[in-house]
Amino acid sequence: MTLNAIEVEMLIREGVPMAVDIDFRVDVVRDGFARARVPFASHLVRPGGTLSGPVQMALADASMYAAILASLGRVEMAVTSNLNINFLQKPAAADLVAEAVVLRMGRRLAFCEVRLLSGSDEKLVAHVTGSYALPA
Amino acid sequence: MTLNAIEVEMLIREGVPMAVDIDFRVDVVRDGFARARVPFASHLVRPGGTLSGPVQMALADASMYAAILASLGRVEMAVTSNLNINFLQKPAAADLVAEAVVLRMGRRLAFCEVRLLSGSDEKLVAHVTGSYALPA
Amino acid sequence: MTLNAIEVEMLIREGVPMAVDIDFRVDVVRDGFARARVPFASHLVRPGGTLSGPVQMALADASMYAAILASLGRVEMAVTSNLNINFLQKPAAADLVAEAVVLRMGRRLAFCEVRLLSGSDEKLVAHVTGSYALPA
Amino acid sequence: MTLNAIEVEMLIREGVPMAVDIDFRVDVVRDGFARARVPFASHLVRPGGTLSGPVQMALADASMYAAILASLGRVEMAVTSNLNINFLQKPAAADLVAEAVVLRMGRRLAFCEVRLLSGSDEKLVAHVTGSYALPA
Repeated sequence: MTLNAIEVEMLIREGVPMAVDIDFRVDVVRDGFARARVPFASHLVRPGGTLSGPVQMALADASMYAAILASLGRVEMAVTSNLNINFLQKPAAADLVAEAVVLRMGRRLAFCEVRLLSGSDEKLVAHVTGSYALPA
Repeated sequence: MTLNAIEVEMLIREGVPMAVDIDFRVDVVRDGFARARVPFASHLVRPGGTLSGPVQMALADASMYAAILASLGRVEMAVTSNLNINFLQKPAAADLVAEAVVLRMGRRLAFCEVRLLSGSDEKLVAHVTGSYALPA
Repeated sequence: MTLNAIEVEMLIREGVPMAVDIDFRVDVVRDGFARARVPFASHLVRPGGTLSGPVQMALADASMYAAILASLGRVEMAVTSNLNINFLQKPAAADLVAEAVVLRMGRRLAFCEVRLLSGSDEKLVAHVTGSYALPA
Repeated sequence: MTLNAIEVEMLIREGVPMAVDIDFRVDVVRDGFARARVPFASHLVRPGGTLSGPVQMALADASMYAAILASLGRVEMAVTSNLNINFLQKPAAADLVAEAVVLRMGRRLAFCEVRLLSGSDEKLVAHVTGSYALPA
């Protein structure tokens, strides 16, 4: 029932078409945690050479879902209920990494925190919180 | 200096690659307001036949930007500072419309509200607030 | 089963001690809506003569609850799940009014929007969204 | 110019009347960090014996301010711009502790994260993010 990083990545790519568009990769999963990334790619860049806000939001959302799948196994009907993102700095021209943690797994809602990290020094470029509604 | 709907749409499509991916369209702009849409397209759909969360977030972000461009003219360096989205219902298998309003145009921040509407009855499917940092 | 403004005000004052501290008043309720206020009082003021952020948050939270009680009748175990507030301008040295609307009444969550209005011209000083978890 | 915990506590109590109402205490400050608390007191409790949402929001807001004062020294005109709180569990009948961290100190905005912890096991009861607008 437990899923590994490759299984989680495949489930999300099958379920969320935009995950394919941003080339969403899952590096690590464990109970309540996922580390994922968007490989740097020119077609996602906005003027100034940084990954756009929507790419960052898509990565954050998918990485929360990855952390939940890693915790619960297949819950394909989980849907995002709320997502709040604060953009702190421009990402570097580099892979964008997400570290998602489940802070509270309730019966009806899973609440997560995501840090978006950029560059070889993994500087914090955006902070995200969000909740997923879980199936009954 | 004032921009019309087509000019706003072109500026955003040039500046945000994901706006092209979701086929972002601007229908109406006026000072402090924009009405925009994502035409329904199968490649954006997630299982169950609805537009995914990341598509909704990308539309909301771009429509806020459209309302700001409509108010200020070309401000290409405006960047999203915060975006908070609540997903209320599944969108229908139809175009997704965004109505974005600038609630407060400060010197440094523009604060906006966006309603995402779906189907011929334009039911409210998501509610978004957000702020853009304005260039000095 | 339907509650009027006075009954809603009493229920909230009994249930939330801070509602008494801010002298929370309910002016109008109807299905999905409440209009409430904090009378201007010197002991709530911060330097510069305006009502503090915590007073604004307490008013917003209580007015959401009022709109939910007005919709559902007595649901004393409803609890706030999320509250997001954007402070837009300093309130005037005057009563602070809240208009709360239920945008989506789900089975498990009620999602609300609140506008905080200040002064005789009722200028928008803060915008709030929030959700309440409803009892099963 | 650097302020200690007692100085920060006094500045906030002078500036925000509600900080006095909740008996706001600052235990520890250092650059970019503050640990503060609301001592458990019966007049703040809501039915069920827990500290109300508005008390939690007031504590979170004041502890962010404490972390900013600890970083910058006296900046009395800093004002909250955005606050987003997720309530995760009921607090215990015990002191409520806040740990506030400045995640990004920009020139115009300070962005903070706060964890509200309750009981002798310091379980996470609420998660807060927020930004303060800094004087020019």
